[in-house]
Amino acid sequence: MPMAIAPETVKVKEEERVSPVFGSCPLPIFDHKQIVLGHGSGGKLTSELIEKIFLPAFSNPILDKLDDQALLNIGDTRLAFTTDSFVVTPIFFPGGDIGRLAVHGTVNDLAMSGARPLYLSAAFILEEGLRVEDLCRVVESMRAAAADSGVHFVTGDTKVVNRGKGDQIFITTTGIGVVEANVNISASRAQPGDCILLSGTIGDHGMAIMSQREGLEFESEIASDCASLHDLVAQMLATPSETTDFLHCLRDPTRGGVATTLNEIAKASHSGMLLHEQSIPVRESVRGACEILGLDPLYVANEGKLLAVVAPEMGEAVLARMRQHPLGRDAAIIGEVVATHPGMVLMKTGIGGTRVLDVMFGEQLPRIC
Amino acid sequence: MPMAIAPETVKVKEEERVSPVFGSCPLPIFDHKQIVLGHGSGGKLTSELIEKIFLPAFSNPILDKLDDQALLNIGDTRLAFTTDSFVVTPIFFPGGDIGRLAVHGTVNDLAMSGARPLYLSAAFILEEGLRVEDLCRVVESMRAAAADSGVHFVTGDTKVVNRGKGDQIFITTTGIGVVEANVNISASRAQPGDCILLSGTIGDHGMAIMSQREGLEFESEIASDCASLHDLVAQMLATPSETTDFLHCLRDPTRGGVATTLNEIAKASHSGMLLHEQSIPVRESVRGACEILGLDPLYVANEGKLLAVVAPEMGEAVLARMRQHPLGRDAAIIGEVVATHPGMVLMKTGIGGTRVLDVMFGEQLPRIC
Repeated sequence: MPMAIAPETVKVKEEERVSPVFGSCPLPIFDHKQIVLGHGSGGKLTSELIEKIFLPAFSNPILDKLDDQALLNIGDTRLAFTTDSFVVTPIFFPGGDIGRLAVHGTVNDLAMSGARPLYLSAAFILEEGLRVEDLCRVVESMRAAAADSGVHFVTGDTKVVNRGKGDQIFITTTGIGVVEANVNISASRAQPGDCILLSGTIGDHGMAIMSQREGLEFESEIASDCASLHDLVAQMLATPSETTDFLHCLRDPTRGGVATTLNEIAKASHSGMLLHEQSIPVRESVRGACEILGLDPLYVANEGKLLAVVAPEMGEAVLARMRQHPLGRDAAIIGEVVATHPGMVLMKTGIGGTRVLDVMFGEQLPRIC
Repeated sequence: MPMAIAPETVKVKEEERVSPVFGSCPLPIFDHKQIVLGHGSGGKLTSELIEKIFLPAFSNPILDKLDDQALLNIGDTRLAFTTDSFVVTPIFFPGGDIGRLAVHGTVNDLAMSGARPLYLSAAFILEEGLRVEDLCRVVESMRAAAADSGVHFVTGDTKVVNRGKGDQIFITTTGIGVVEANVNISASRAQPGDCILLSGTIGDHGMAIMSQREGLEFESEIASDCASLHDLVAQMLATPSETTDFLHCLRDPTRGGVATTLNEIAKASHSGMLLHEQSIPVRESVRGACEILGLDPLYVANEGKLLAVVAPEMGEAVLARMRQHPLGRDAAIIGEVVATHPGMVLMKTGIGGTRVLDVMFGEQLPRIC
């Protein structure tokens, strides 16, 4: 398929755009001549990169869904398949490290389709000069996380780049899992009336990294919430119900946080979201750290939390199941899907106002995962 | 499984080794305190990294085979699963670029199990400041290579790292393919008497990169041989035969070249290899460039060539099929598997001597793929 130029972009001033020609293939019209950190933020700039550069080249019905994992029909099996690169800095932080994050992150992308995670691959890009001791710590951490999550590393690769051409260690993990036939979870399935559930406190991962990076100290240490959520999802799917199909969407609010993830679901499902600020759990230490750094916890990354969109009659029952699980103890119903303002996320604030939660534009916290 | 210390390493002098303790887990005894470029070479140092650090942590029956892809039984299907990171520099070179290489490299790792390649994932690590024009060229090249190879990108990820913490673009591609029930290809299956076949000239990819990097000019340009080999493999498997099981091993001699790859097969199958130097095809331009740079083409990377180990009675028939395929026109039988010197590769030289082809120790050509 040739690279296409999205029609709506043609209006923008030509002199601000890049559009040379290479080979027989015109470049897409694109806001930047160079990649900036914000293109990796998970926010608007990342979407632009995906929509203008990757999708036109690679478009197919599976990829175009833009879920966090691909669902593949192979033989009589529905396979979930997902990949993520991890470039977090620093590589060790309170509550985890880049290895633990790589395992849990990929397990979670599988789990968000309702899949049972089975196998992982790991590709390492090491910088010349990396301490072998640090590599061993990361590898041991990956081993422990994989064992906890019941997944196996079955293949891998190692490359080494020159000093100053990498940053200690980058890890790309790819996962394979199996989705049962009666499970049908996708961001596009949110519908008006559905409850929006959140599995626990927000912002812990992002603020753990930031406080480590900035050398901030708080009365109680903020630790990453980095954890595998597949078992919590299995518990949710096992909620007694007359219909098996009450769990419409699942997504883990990583880069871009709860606000960005809910915007993705709103966009994919052409529905609106209405949140209640007071119902969203935030630790006091995280709220304090966010205030000091001028950040909004709704946009801060999580690595062990999920958002679920559930049929209205099942909201309370699913919530009760979540609260019985160690990773869902602080779960809450934080809002509902609405027919008004499709594609938008609004929030009733504590003082009674209404605020639009837009997608983050660029980069709030670079290299958080 | 706890990290284990390989018994044979205990003999080495302690003061040259690293063995601090982190958590409850002793570090393996390891020759280096820091990662060096050679750990990414595909040679002895890479093996040491795998055997002492990755395998003890991640060991399981699938991974322990150390084939270039994992074979997974999922439902009624045998799935091949493989991952590779690409960090080649420069990212554009005669005959290809990092994107084309990433697609063909992963397709080939699938093809070497006899799999029909189906789906790929792509994870990009971009350096801040990368020219969008260059990214588009790479993406277009990936699109074309995937279309040529009949595979689809179904999921992906993009991260951006700060300027000076990456090198323009790193790509990790992971592939999934399906292996037919009657196909059973593994490095461990070489047996005395088998023919060793090579699909064409060696060293083209490595010398294309090196001549680009060193600014060398030759009378005829050396271009990378970068190509997807799954169709050639399908032709080989379709060679008329009374047994379906004549194709014992397949491997593409990438990092470390033909010599290193044959050593891997010799080691995995506990058999010896005897090559005939005069039967190994090398282009004159590649031979000349190797002489100038002091390199041995047997250790130089290829990206569109395969080595096959075939039952003796089928050697000539498979060779004839290969030569009918555009990617196998220069195919040759280059030696045989022998019962003497198990685990070693020897070569009869043009002047009648015998030379041991050992595994490359460290790094001959860093960042070749």
